Amino acid sequence: MPRLHPDRLLPADPHTRAIARVLLDEVENLPVISPHGHTDPAWFALDEAFPDPAQLLIIPDHYLLRMLYSQGVQLEALGVRPRDGSDYQRDGREIWRNFAANYHLFRGTPTRMWMDWVLGDLFGIEEALDASTSDLFFDRMAAQLATPQFRPRALFDRFGIEALATTEGALDQLEHHARIRASGWSGNVITTFRPDPALDPDNPGFQSNLDTLGELTGEDSYSWKGYLNALANRRAYFREVGAATATDHGHPTPATADLAAADAEALFLRVRAGKGSAADHELFRAQMLTEMAQMSLDDGMVMQLHPGSLRNYDPTIFSRFGADKGADIPVKTEFTRALKPLLNRFGNDPRFSMIVFTLDETAYSRELAPLAGLYPALKIGPAWWFHDSPEGIRRFREQTTETAGFYNGVGFNDDTRAFLSIPARHNLARRLDCGFLARLVAEHRMSENEAVEVAIDLTYRLAKRAYRL
Amino acid sequence: MPRLHPDRLLPADPHTRAIARVLLDEVENLPVISPHGHTDPAWFALDEAFPDPAQLLIIPDHYLLRMLYSQGVQLEALGVRPRDGSDYQRDGREIWRNFAANYHLFRGTPTRMWMDWVLGDLFGIEEALDASTSDLFFDRMAAQLATPQFRPRALFDRFGIEALATTEGALDQLEHHARIRASGWSGNVITTFRPDPALDPDNPGFQSNLDTLGELTGEDSYSWKGYLNALANRRAYFREVGAATATDHGHPTPATADLAAADAEALFLRVRAGKGSAADHELFRAQMLTEMAQMSLDDGMVMQLHPGSLRNYDPTIFSRFGADKGADIPVKTEFTRALKPLLNRFGNDPRFSMIVFTLDETAYSRELAPLAGLYPALKIGPAWWFHDSPEGIRRFREQTTETAGFYNGVGFNDDTRAFLSIPARHNLARRLDCGFLARLVAEHRMSENEAVEVAIDLTYRLAKRAYRL
Amino acid sequence: MPRLHPDRLLPADPHTRAIARVLLDEVENLPVISPHGHTDPAWFALDEAFPDPAQLLIIPDHYLLRMLYSQGVQLEALGVRPRDGSDYQRDGREIWRNFAANYHLFRGTPTRMWMDWVLGDLFGIEEALDASTSDLFFDRMAAQLATPQFRPRALFDRFGIEALATTEGALDQLEHHARIRASGWSGNVITTFRPDPALDPDNPGFQSNLDTLGELTGEDSYSWKGYLNALANRRAYFREVGAATATDHGHPTPATADLAAADAEALFLRVRAGKGSAADHELFRAQMLTEMAQMSLDDGMVMQLHPGSLRNYDPTIFSRFGADKGADIPVKTEFTRALKPLLNRFGNDPRFSMIVFTLDETAYSRELAPLAGLYPALKIGPAWWFHDSPEGIRRFREQTTETAGFYNGVGFNDDTRAFLSIPARHNLARRLDCGFLARLVAEHRMSENEAVEVAIDLTYRLAKRAYRL
Repeated sequence: MPRLHPDRLLPADPHTRAIARVLLDEVENLPVISPHGHTDPAWFALDEAFPDPAQLLIIPDHYLLRMLYSQGVQLEALGVRPRDGSDYQRDGREIWRNFAANYHLFRGTPTRMWMDWVLGDLFGIEEALDASTSDLFFDRMAAQLATPQFRPRALFDRFGIEALATTEGALDQLEHHARIRASGWSGNVITTFRPDPALDPDNPGFQSNLDTLGELTGEDSYSWKGYLNALANRRAYFREVGAATATDHGHPTPATADLAAADAEALFLRVRAGKGSAADHELFRAQMLTEMAQMSLDDGMVMQLHPGSLRNYDPTIFSRFGADKGADIPVKTEFTRALKPLLNRFGNDPRFSMIVFTLDETAYSRELAPLAGLYPALKIGPAWWFHDSPEGIRRFREQTTETAGFYNGVGFNDDTRAFLSIPARHNLARRLDCGFLARLVAEHRMSENEAVEVAIDLTYRLAKRAYRL
Repeated sequence: MPRLHPDRLLPADPHTRAIARVLLDEVENLPVISPHGHTDPAWFALDEAFPDPAQLLIIPDHYLLRMLYSQGVQLEALGVRPRDGSDYQRDGREIWRNFAANYHLFRGTPTRMWMDWVLGDLFGIEEALDASTSDLFFDRMAAQLATPQFRPRALFDRFGIEALATTEGALDQLEHHARIRASGWSGNVITTFRPDPALDPDNPGFQSNLDTLGELTGEDSYSWKGYLNALANRRAYFREVGAATATDHGHPTPATADLAAADAEALFLRVRAGKGSAADHELFRAQMLTEMAQMSLDDGMVMQLHPGSLRNYDPTIFSRFGADKGADIPVKTEFTRALKPLLNRFGNDPRFSMIVFTLDETAYSRELAPLAGLYPALKIGPAWWFHDSPEGIRRFREQTTETAGFYNGVGFNDDTRAFLSIPARHNLARRLDCGFLARLVAEHRMSENEAVEVAIDLTYRLAKRAYRL
Repeated sequence: MPRLHPDRLLPADPHTRAIARVLLDEVENLPVISPHGHTDPAWFALDEAFPDPAQLLIIPDHYLLRMLYSQGVQLEALGVRPRDGSDYQRDGREIWRNFAANYHLFRGTPTRMWMDWVLGDLFGIEEALDASTSDLFFDRMAAQLATPQFRPRALFDRFGIEALATTEGALDQLEHHARIRASGWSGNVITTFRPDPALDPDNPGFQSNLDTLGELTGEDSYSWKGYLNALANRRAYFREVGAATATDHGHPTPATADLAAADAEALFLRVRAGKGSAADHELFRAQMLTEMAQMSLDDGMVMQLHPGSLRNYDPTIFSRFGADKGADIPVKTEFTRALKPLLNRFGNDPRFSMIVFTLDETAYSRELAPLAGLYPALKIGPAWWFHDSPEGIRRFREQTTETAGFYNGVGFNDDTRAFLSIPARHNLARRLDCGFLARLVAEHRMSENEAVEVAIDLTYRLAKRAYRL
């Protein structure tokens, strides 16, 4: 890749671009705050060299897998292991070839912008990626990955990461986080408490997860009170061992409920006995969000809600390859009525903080900006998943700012397991934010001085404040 | 505030901006037609000096209240009186300080643009507003508000208002409107007939409102026929005493119905007896829209429908401070099926005119533009409430024009109780419309001569025609 | 009309426009692939002169009819014949006058761009169209329509059409297509198989259509197996006689179903006996989409799905004038759950190809791009109907590309019965696509060389590949 152009992603109009450059100069090299993501804490605990390029860059990236699959490349050919033990491509070089030959498919996508940075700027390879240069890329990357400068902690420092949160399930013992903390390394890597497997009765492991929850905490996870105690116990453990400041909830819908204590208990007992209906399961998830909000008021953890994805949409792909292979599809999501029980109870309390994300962009201007522009406890999360892209970020700013302002947002999330792309993702968002602000300046809606201040807020301060880092 | 830049809100591209300036020069100083708003007719009837700046500019403005509240400023500190008699800030200077110290929160919002105009251009204060200049602003504004040039009628003339409609409930006796008319003052201030409190069984005062309706009109408001007669009677009163040309309906949904007469009567009797179900209440509102349309055909009043807001969303805020404090949240709104009964009956009649607004922007291109681009009786109202903003107006034009054209719209509404901001709001809309038209010219989709004609239509002619002014 | 400006519809920013021009130069004169439309095959079979301008340009164009009607022009005055035999305007000159006097209503609409091309560039008339020039236009057009150069086949060649698909109902005997093929003419005009009248139990002719289906094919259309055989038989006929490569399905919703064979048969028997409920009818349509997909796997026909229009919305217009007069209104449309049964069964099979269109633009980024970016069998159709417009095409690109890429799309469809406007429609789409690509180049998201390649793909290659032409 030729190195990326210094004006990439800035507005095309020369006057606006010049303003954007001024803003970008102020924020491009600020530290990275990564308060929500899915990197592997083992990397930072063990600090071992990454395996070959395909293992690192292709196989775990569902954005890549889904696009290649949609154009006829089999997942087996991309190194994804079938659950039934049947054959698949194990040779990283071959996997990389399947990617390189199809790199044109990513034209116009954010993956292209992220990957160009990784290949051109991070690995410094100046050739264009296609079938003819595939091996050249593979070899040069493999060689560099073997060097000390490409170890996880060295990259963490080189990337200028000030804080990075991973995400672990509620039953995780956080060995890697403990090890990071015990190692004396200066990198600030923390965990996030993700209790879905122990909150969602539709999770296939729900009952055994609750058994484990009881064992881990010494609480009776067959009683409502014991179950709540166990969850509070795990939250404390995540704060102590993993320095967690936030929880994360990936529910099918944002439904919340505020049941009377006796009704909540009866619902729990029904669900725990395996006798809950589908409606009971939805109501239980809804009630548990409100219970989690109550606990957040007690322990100060920020609450994140990520609703609206129909997970494992394709049974063939799921049964053959499992979850997180790109086969999750968004659905329409209603927030105004869904969040009302929780917001009516806790939304006016400025000590509580809840960050809501959406895959349904229609909610930006209709529901989320009006709600975040009213409730002290509610913030809008940045453009998420399919919308974490140049046009997606632009729509987010255009559709939320006028009603919610800038200060009911929380800065940027990279939300990624692709560690090498973290700088590219943050850089992309900074460029889009500076472009948006530059337009406001060019249209005389804001002074350039103010825009600099807002750019720093969006890049750095808001994320630190929102996530209590 | 430094005075606003003459090119503010025009497109950043220099060529397009130059075209926009040509268009703006043709319309910037045209008279203001304000056919839908919520100013207080007492102002124009009594023509007394406005009270202090906070009373005028902060306390009644729900846009301001909600943003400050979302960032932790208590409503009591902004001068909003709790219903339970507990303490609140009564000192305008202190209230203004709470606003001034937080003015940065409005960056990127339309409030910022409106307020900059009021402070910088109308009051002529050149300093920047923040905590350090708060008192300076307060004192200078207070001094000017005491002068004759800042009396309501003087401002009305200075603002170049040719016609201004207020909104009164169906039971209002319109004393102030009568007084305006009797005064011999030349200002054209008219009322709008808002019958919701007497049409909506979910209104807490519904039954007593119908009793009052009977008393005011001498009709039997316990009979279906008497009730309809009473409403027709009030409509006539609003036309005679308040020169009303329009009605306004703020329903939760745009549902309409076209029941057989006997079914409508039975529904009314059930509802009037307090025995209506929730579904009955919705059906009654739906039927009453169709009844109002029938009366509009008889008396020529233009019908406005404003659906899709979940009012008084937060019970804590509502019970403590009452309605209209910024705690109304939009919901998804379906128009195609909802309006079908009414449109199928009256939509083909060009004598009837109905203007529909939405808080759900997804309806623009999917439902409202296709409907307005078909039915002679249907027009699309301008970008409303949360969407009355630079980006909101731009989206409105981009998403309605290609299907409905310009001529199935009705120009601009300011919809405000913030009298001082009326020129700023109309000016903002004119700039956005000229910017949109300038882009069409720059893209050779329209000649500059045509664009001038359309700009004048959007600014002046369409509103006069649509509201029969 | 003055001839259209060579830079029309290109981005206003001079730098971006210059890039767009480079791209446009590469694609503006490529052959037209028109794989979905509604021109009359009789034109190409008989190659007779078109009747007068109003018959050709006004009466069959529902875009024109609806806009003029919305502003008070009666359909009778536009030459639309009432079903009840009452009077209507038969004089093409008078019809054209009613259009010409109202041409300003189309400002800002795509109709304006298409018609400007037809009048100015195709007919070469340089005057502006209004009431005063109406007759001049009518006379010059009428004179030219009488010349050999304006015969259908001459225009087909002049327009550079490489392939054009019409659409015929499942019961059509395709006489005109047979005649075209027998004529030895080189023009590639093919049909498309549209089975709705024989698949949709809500079609008023459903039962008699199935009787006809049985007669045409010699199958027992009262048995499930016979009915399926008859449909397969007709598909084969359309391929043989009309060279069809695609089917088209215009359903109210995109619901699909995958019933057990016995349940499907029972449902058919209920529906065929006229005893189906409304839910049965919807389920039957849903099941039949899946049956059609199965047949597509067998015979290789590409499947098109056009859902989300509430047809014949206005009973007055429908009873007086019939269908396709502009009185169809879109409704919200859900795809993720609706398509799941069909996609779960066939979506992973790259031999199958299904193209989905939407009138609900909210589905672009939320549902259709994520689905098309996953399933090998699914492609997104271009911006459709009300959204086949400059702003609509721009939104389509901005909202689908980042998730689905360019290569899960299918190029452009003109979807028109307005034959003369086909070049204008394709040219408009090419300009918008080049403008979008030019912005990506200007923002350094793609090289100019790549953009040229993509522009050719979007203009030419993708449509040929997707429709197997």
